[in-house]
Parts: sequence; C-alpha cells; structure tokens
Amino acid sequence: MRIETHFSATEAEDGDVTGRTAIVIDVIRATSVIVEALASGARAIYPTLSTEDAIRLANSLGREDTLLCGERKGLKVEGFDLGNSPREFTPEAVADRRLVMSTTNGTRAFMAAQGARRVIALSFLNLSAVSHAVAADGKLALICAGKEGRFSLDDALCAGLLIRSLTRRIEDGTLETTPLELNDQSTAALSLARAFPADTGTLERTAAGQALLAVGLEADLPVCAQHDRHDLVPEMHDRMIRVLPRQGAAGVS
Amino acid sequence: MRIETHFSATEAEDGDVTGRTAIVIDVIRATSVIVEALASGARAIYPTLSTEDAIRLANSLGREDTLLCGERKGLKVEGFDLGNSPREFTPEAVADRRLVMSTTNGTRAFMAAQGARRVIALSFLNLSAVSHAVAADGKLALICAGKEGRFSLDDALCAGLLIRSLTRRIEDGTLETTPLELNDQSTAALSLARAFPADTGTLERTAAGQALLAVGLEADLPVCAQHDRHDLVPEMHDRMIRVLPRQGAAGVS
Repeated sequence: MRIETHFSATEAEDGDVTGRTAIVIDVIRATSVIVEALASGARAIYPTLSTEDAIRLANSLGREDTLLCGERKGLKVEGFDLGNSPREFTPEAVADRRLVMSTTNGTRAFMAAQGARRVIALSFLNLSAVSHAVAADGKLALICAGKEGRFSLDDALCAGLLIRSLTRRIEDGTLETTPLELNDQSTAALSLARAFPADTGTLERTAAGQALLAVGLEADLPVCAQHDRHDLVPEMHDRMIRVLPRQGAAGVS
Repeated sequence: MRIETHFSATEAEDGDVTGRTAIVIDVIRATSVIVEALASGARAIYPTLSTEDAIRLANSLGREDTLLCGERKGLKVEGFDLGNSPREFTPEAVADRRLVMSTTNGTRAFMAAQGARRVIALSFLNLSAVSHAVAADGKLALICAGKEGRFSLDDALCAGLLIRSLTRRIEDGTLETTPLELNDQSTAALSLARAFPADTGTLERTAAGQALLAVGLEADLPVCAQHDRHDLVPEMHDRMIRVLPRQGAAGVS
C-alpha cells in the first residue's frame, strides 16, 4: 500500500491522483460539515469554488429543496442559508435537502482530487469508517486542504490518524496488504499523530482553530474533535458528494 | 519571538518576509554546500535560478576566478565546474573563488527570501552558529526549500532543530526574548525534531535522500548529517552569499 499525503491543495494540484483513492481532509471545517450533514440526512453536497458558482448551481438545481451553504473568513456568506458550522447541519435543517457548498480551502482540495479513482471526505468524525472503506485500495492520496495553499496542523494530524489506523491493522494482522510505502509527508503526519492528542485542545492551538475563536465560533471545535461520531463514508462522483453504500468487502471488521 | 516556518519555497512565495530574518534551509544539498564552500574559503556564492542565468553571470564576473556550480536531477550540469555535492567543495577547489550556483529548489528558496531584513543559510552543518546569530532577532521566517513546491522531511527536521535549540535556550534562561509564538508549521517541525534522530539514517529515508541514492551520491548524506561541523553563518546581501563577520552580540555563548 502506498500512501502519499499532500499538505495543501496547492501541493496536490501539482501532483497526480490518477488511479489513486483521493481522501480529502478539511477538519476545520468543510469535511466535518460534510460528514455531519450527510449523517443528518442531506441527499447530496455539491462543492463549488466561488459563491457566484454556488448561487448559479443552486438556481439550476431548484431552490425549493436546495440550500446554499458556505463561508468566507469563517462567517456565513451574506444571503446564504447556512454557514460552515457543523452545529448548523441538523436533521431539521438539512434532511432530504441538496446542499451547494462554497468554502475557502475545502472546495479547492476536492477540485485537486478530480481524476482520482475514488474521492472520499475524511474528518475526525468518520475516521474508522474511512479507514475500513479504503483498506483494500492499493494507492491512497491524502489531500489536506490546508490554509491558503499552506500546511495546517489539524489536517496533517487527521491524515496521520488515518495512516496510524491502517498501520495498526497491518501490524496486528487484520489488514493484509503490500508493504507500506509512505512519502515524506505521510511519515511526518504519522509522527504528528503519535505526538499530539487529537482533541479540542490541540485544535484550539492551530491557526484554523484560532481563526474560529477570533470570530466567536469556538463551539465548533469540540464537534470537529469528536472521533468516530458517525459511521459513514462520503464519496464524490460527478462533483456530487453522497454517502457511499456500505459494501460487504473483505477486510471490513 | 515569532517563528514562522514555510514548508516549501512555494509556501514562502505567498508569504511576507518583510521585516523578518529569513533562514533558508536546503539540507540535501544547497545550504549544506554553501556552508561547506564558505568554510573552504570561497569568497562568495551567487544563487541563480536557471543554468543560463548562471553562465551569463559567471561570464560577467570573469571566468578566471569564478566557478559554475549546480545540479539538475542531482547531477552536475554539463559543462559546469562543480556539481552540488558538499564533498566537491574542498579548499583546493574553491578557496578565494566566487561560485555561481544553480540548484533546483535551493535557489527558489533564496529568491522567496528576498525582501527580508536578513537572509541566512542554514543546514545541519551550522545549526549552533545560526541559532546564536539569530537569537536577538524578534521575527524569524524559516524557509524550507522543499522539493518542487512540496514538503521535505529533511528540511522540516532542520527547521525543527533550530526551533528546539532556541526553545532550550529560552527554557534554561540563556536566551531572553518575548514569549515564543509558533505557526502550525513551526509547531509541527519542533515535534518532528523531537521524534526523529537527525542523522544519516533519517536522511536516507527521505525522498531527497532516496533520489541521491538513485544517482549513486549516497556518500553525500553522512556529510549533510553532521551537526555543527562549521561555526559560520552565511548571509545573503545583494544576491551574494558570504560569511557574516562575527558579532560580539549579547546572548552568544
């Protein structure tokens, strides 16, 4: 199994995801929101780059069952239905709705993943589900959204937690695969996952966490920090993210 | 003291180094070569982006006392005097010479550092010297060259070793400064420096180390891995890197 981690969407844009399973990570907060929204019964999520694209797409999908979601500088876009806080994506708000979503860094990471064999959304909220869903895939590309083209500790930590989960299962014999090959970023991410507790306190220390505190959204952090809150795997096809139907695949324990 | 680390020249290009001391890191191998060459008595080093620029500059400086140095894909550029192996930069080869140097990633990192208050070259070979030279500077920008716009473990590790050195001196009271502020990359780099031995074995595991092995230059790695082999601080002014005259600064032990 080869695991290539990219520490930002920019790094990933220069890479090649062809034939790989791309796993997009934006802990604070796009992929946390995606997991939460799908767990709350949203039908599908459509990531878009600009707010203008989002409005155009929502209008073409039909505004009666489509919600406009997204943030700029952490706050809800003016005129949108929802922001980018996982706490907003309750069953009351999103069940059976389609969500058009425009976020600063997360959407860019999904765009960088296009061309991959599969594209999956990962956050702390669905670590174990993703770890099992990708276990049979030989080549993984972990795409951290990062912050404006740069490394984010929260995303790197999440990448490291997934690698640690796979490593542990290889070591205890529950996952059979070819020898693990890690690029420099994967090696570093695994080390970070071993060094830092993956909890609210660590998220608060990150630049993304500090930016949330600065706009009064610190209550999002304990939500984003929950491990395995949901047992679901969001997968993107044709620019649309939905829950992957559960497969009775070998190796799933 | 605020320490901002950038994990690649690309990250740094988007940043702002104005008013900061920029510390350029390309362990394998540009900044290791720069330290070694200056220790061997080279008068100055001129980093250039392209081999064409290098040839033009060498011709304008005068070819009799100027050497053309540089690599592409790890190997010496055809027609150049020297490659990018620290073992080549002996006193016999470079004493009293000017060196025009074109390397893939290292030069880009120096270009990204332009506009900084000071620009310094760091490798394992001169860690302590740089740690003392920058101790009185309030804002540091550590610019890892990385590999083609991406994170390199060797450079991040070196950044972490410098941060660890400064942290230890703050903790033991030999360096007085304002509270230490680290960006996400600096926090991660410090963690990596605590997790990995900074030795030949670790360098061999990195992508840059593997690339050297692939072209038969693995003997460079034990040279690049030596800590504090030289007590000198290369500093760039007007695109020319020379040894900083030793200052009798407070805090230097």
